[in-house]
Amino acid sequence: MSNPLEKIKSAVRGLRAYTLSPERASVKLNQNESPWDASEAIKRETLRRMGGRAWNRYPDFVPAALHEKLAAFAGWKSEGVLAGNGSNELIQALLMVTVGEGRRVLISEPTFALYRQVATVLGGEVLSVPLDAGLQFDVAALLDSIRTNDPDVTIICSPNNPTGCRMSDGALETLLAAARGLVVVDEAYFEFSGETVVPLLERHPNLAVFRTFSKAMALAALRVGYLLAAPELAREVGKALLPYNLNAFSQTAAEVSVEMYDGELAPVVRHIVAERERLFEELRRVPGLAPVASRANFMVVRSTVEPKRVFDELLRRDILIRDVSGYPMLADYFRVSVGTPRENDLLIAGLKEILG
Amino acid sequence: MSNPLEKIKSAVRGLRAYTLSPERASVKLNQNESPWDASEAIKRETLRRMGGRAWNRYPDFVPAALHEKLAAFAGWKSEGVLAGNGSNELIQALLMVTVGEGRRVLISEPTFALYRQVATVLGGEVLSVPLDAGLQFDVAALLDSIRTNDPDVTIICSPNNPTGCRMSDGALETLLAAARGLVVVDEAYFEFSGETVVPLLERHPNLAVFRTFSKAMALAALRVGYLLAAPELAREVGKALLPYNLNAFSQTAAEVSVEMYDGELAPVVRHIVAERERLFEELRRVPGLAPVASRANFMVVRSTVEPKRVFDELLRRDILIRDVSGYPMLADYFRVSVGTPRENDLLIAGLKEILG
Repeated sequence: MSNPLEKIKSAVRGLRAYTLSPERASVKLNQNESPWDASEAIKRETLRRMGGRAWNRYPDFVPAALHEKLAAFAGWKSEGVLAGNGSNELIQALLMVTVGEGRRVLISEPTFALYRQVATVLGGEVLSVPLDAGLQFDVAALLDSIRTNDPDVTIICSPNNPTGCRMSDGALETLLAAARGLVVVDEAYFEFSGETVVPLLERHPNLAVFRTFSKAMALAALRVGYLLAAPELAREVGKALLPYNLNAFSQTAAEVSVEMYDGELAPVVRHIVAERERLFEELRRVPGLAPVASRANFMVVRSTVEPKRVFDELLRRDILIRDVSGYPMLADYFRVSVGTPRENDLLIAGLKEILG
Repeated sequence: MSNPLEKIKSAVRGLRAYTLSPERASVKLNQNESPWDASEAIKRETLRRMGGRAWNRYPDFVPAALHEKLAAFAGWKSEGVLAGNGSNELIQALLMVTVGEGRRVLISEPTFALYRQVATVLGGEVLSVPLDAGLQFDVAALLDSIRTNDPDVTIICSPNNPTGCRMSDGALETLLAAARGLVVVDEAYFEFSGETVVPLLERHPNLAVFRTFSKAMALAALRVGYLLAAPELAREVGKALLPYNLNAFSQTAAEVSVEMYDGELAPVVRHIVAERERLFEELRRVPGLAPVASRANFMVVRSTVEPKRVFDELLRRDILIRDVSGYPMLADYFRVSVGTPRENDLLIAGLKEILG
């Protein structure tokens, strides 16, 4: 009998299986989740609706009710909305229908690692423009790459994970106007910036916007994301989604969260933003630390103490952060999610000890 | 501005968006779901566990607790288990790591349409061996194709959707021994056959088995499937899954269902099997109908009245079945899922009127 693993594509066999360090801690500031759980009102209403629903029946073929609620929430047309099993699935679907051998994907690094990974698995060529020295988008360099290399897809994470910078609408419009390919804006953290590029969709049929329920919407456990784009583009991306990709429970929780956003979630977002600003000011005053201003619910911090050591020392204090020193340009940085006031206080106290 | 749709791959643009007819009816016998909802005990315990869990936190990176329960349930090693967002996702993942231009996938048609669709989207060549005249697997022809064409992947749906035939373990072993590629057995309906090929996994590292929670486990709404294979093979397939592919609620419901299988689900499966046999005998006695014996929770029925007309006439009686006359070899057939006794009685009465 021959070795069945020989049938696995060599590019796949060469990939390291994606893993995450299994560390756990009481103060969890490593994944940019909301530090507060979904509210009792949201949980109760979701569980109530699911208790009354048949679990033995397939979910809606197209989650039309959710699409309509998302359209109203985002200010876009429901035919241009596509919900998925986390925004990761939608990013993968968009790249599946556009990227293969000979296709080029432009990104600005350091950024969310999934873009490069999926584009590579699909056989595409990744073009990367670094952020500028202040860890902001280098719009001139991006524009230059678009004009020179004509990428099929340009992906801008804005606010950017892990650095927190946001691209201005004016800058984005120069890219949209210059690009012959698609321009994707990942707005996973837009709620914390108070701004969105959705109003640009009407004028730019080459724009696609991704959003998630895993951050401000406090539903990371349930894996819901959505895409906003011109209806024709959304339809093509939808061809790469498997039937019934979104389960009924996550669909229900997302609907309830959108319905209750103003009362239950918007105040939490404002609280997190206020804590972000407080955390930034406090960390600025710690000798040896230099936090980078962020539009998201996290920030990177330059540290005179090696990031790996900061990580380990905080973990000893039961605080989990993200060591991002392996990212390009971030050799001296760690990333912290904004926690509750108490969690942020513990983080600040721990860092003062470590840096002191 | 150029047309952004030009950036969509032409193979994708040529695909029809997968849709399902939006018909609804009180008696739903078109998707091979369990006719009984998950039990109150299973729902209550799932909702209880989820009420106490943080929704704002990502699910487990690897759902180890579920993998262990599935391993014990299936009689296999937990390192060789991979849970996903429906078995569709796992089928796609296995094909993604094995199929591309120049690769060959052997299937036996008529069968579940997803295999051909995904293999085609991935650029593979689909080889198809028809069922024999009695709608059973043509093992000699499959063996011949394996020897002649050396397919990279062979997919056997057993019991087969939509015809209900099961391949014997002996026949499967001749394919496994002859194949240099992977042999995939989709056991979506194995509970209704009372048999499984899992004991063959130990001796055949080129075998992969797929299962689902959407049929006998009565959780179609929640989208859970799993793969059983040699640990090395499972690890390679896992590389094509996106991180956090399985949400916490579906994971929890699956764990509870496995824990409660013997008391809550096994009796339901036995009831469905008994109803299948009763339905078969009743339909045999309807002049103009010839049901095909099935090992699953559905059957195809040859009909002297055109299947499309049977479909329409049943829909007028508020009964939804599946018109499979578009499948190869099934021009004269419709498919019915086995319902509750009352639903089956309504189906039989309706068919007697239509054929009478």
